Amino acid sequence: MKSILITGANRGIGLGIVKQLVSNPSSIEYIFAGYRDVNKSKELLDLAKQHSNVIIPIQIDVSDDESCNKAKIEVENKLGNSRGLNCLLNNAGVNKELKFNDINEKDMLDTYKHNVIGPWRVTKTFLPLVEKAVSGERNVLQASIINVSSGMGSVTLAPTMPFFYFDYQCSKAALDMFTVCFAETLAKSNIYITLLHPGWVQTEMGGAQAPLTIEEACKSIVECINSMKNEHYGKLVDATSGSSCAITPF
Amino acid sequence: MKSILITGANRGIGLGIVKQLVSNPSSIEYIFAGYRDVNKSKELLDLAKQHSNVIIPIQIDVSDDESCNKAKIEVENKLGNSRGLNCLLNNAGVNKELKFNDINEKDMLDTYKHNVIGPWRVTKTFLPLVEKAVSGERNVLQASIINVSSGMGSVTLAPTMPFFYFDYQCSKAALDMFTVCFAETLAKSNIYITLLHPGWVQTEMGGAQAPLTIEEACKSIVECINSMKNEHYGKLVDATSGSSCAITPF
Repeated sequence: MKSILITGANRGIGLGIVKQLVSNPSSIEYIFAGYRDVNKSKELLDLAKQHSNVIIPIQIDVSDDESCNKAKIEVENKLGNSRGLNCLLNNAGVNKELKFNDINEKDMLDTYKHNVIGPWRVTKTFLPLVEKAVSGERNVLQASIINVSSGMGSVTLAPTMPFFYFDYQCSKAALDMFTVCFAETLAKSNIYITLLHPGWVQTEMGGAQAPLTIEEACKSIVECINSMKNEHYGKLVDATSGSSCAITPF
Repeated sequence: MKSILITGANRGIGLGIVKQLVSNPSSIEYIFAGYRDVNKSKELLDLAKQHSNVIIPIQIDVSDDESCNKAKIEVENKLGNSRGLNCLLNNAGVNKELKFNDINEKDMLDTYKHNVIGPWRVTKTFLPLVEKAVSGERNVLQASIINVSSGMGSVTLAPTMPFFYFDYQCSKAALDMFTVCFAETLAKSNIYITLLHPGWVQTEMGGAQAPLTIEEACKSIVECINSMKNEHYGKLVDATSGSSCAITPF
């Protein structure tokens, strides 16, 4: 993999993946690190300064067409005419943590807008660049679109959770469905499309009681992406199981 | 079951269920038949005139708080102070039939608003009336909330479909998740909460090539509701399998 775009790379799992990628010897040339708000992205922007030849910060608001189009032009200009984008990792997302009594239309729609329509918008915007990277057989490191979902989006796993975030869980179930349908739609394109479940991680959202540090989770995620096989296409892949392991059915 | 509210009862499966209920000898007293647009509800309103002692047409727009509250007062007035509502059947829904290249934010949000936030709004509005109907153990005919979903909302079944409607399928996956989380949240309430998959039916949406007539499907649905067991609580129940059959995992 020579190039990757990661949305929501300013903190949590997104930032952790950037750190993993930049700290390990690999052939990666460009890590396009998406962030929305410059005021919430100091750590990423500082890291990018230290690795200015590899980490390219890209301002992108997944809920805004113009912002996505502008980001695409930046990425395209950097890649040059001859190369495509090897991997789009749709990681940006929100969680309003709405329990049943907190549910309200505005927040439900806002989470759906960021977690489902956002990945669609970024995907449609960058699809031509990922298509350009296709070469030979379907290969996750050559041309892929990976959506970061969650076990909380699985109706099979959901009842085992100690609490429910309605906005987030509904949006992740919908993102899973979006990705499954999208993977089927593009089955003949040789673009690798799949879903990642990062595990329960000590992010702002996961809280301190989560079993995985961000570093551990992101190490697993990078290993998982590197070892994805054809049978994980269009599935929800559990990054925590070491070797990539498809949770099916979900 | 003495009383039921069915949203989207002006056509398709909703109207078919009203016809089934009214045509069979049963102890039902009130079928509250929800409709949104009086201009699209002639058949229902005519039927209600013929059975004015049983079918009570209720104007309700599931996307509007005020409309839901007004409908609740009408239902409450009819039931009187001493009785609750035995069954809320959230059947109203929309499908914009968006293929990947048709996806746009407005339609995606609109379908989510009607198919996920709509059932939530109706549920929260009528929950006190259903709670009032609780008596003894959990029993679908005594106090229940049943959300009409679709096999198209199952990520396990979705890849087997010949086509994809992204707005609809994402919304139904989210409705499934909503219902599973809601069923867990209310697990101790003795309200029966579940999801119904009506099968592929010759409605406007299903098309003429569907294997089931509306009448056949609605006969199955009524039988399925009547025979629901505790193990179908919080599950997606396939009405077409004759005896009620939980599709798990999904």
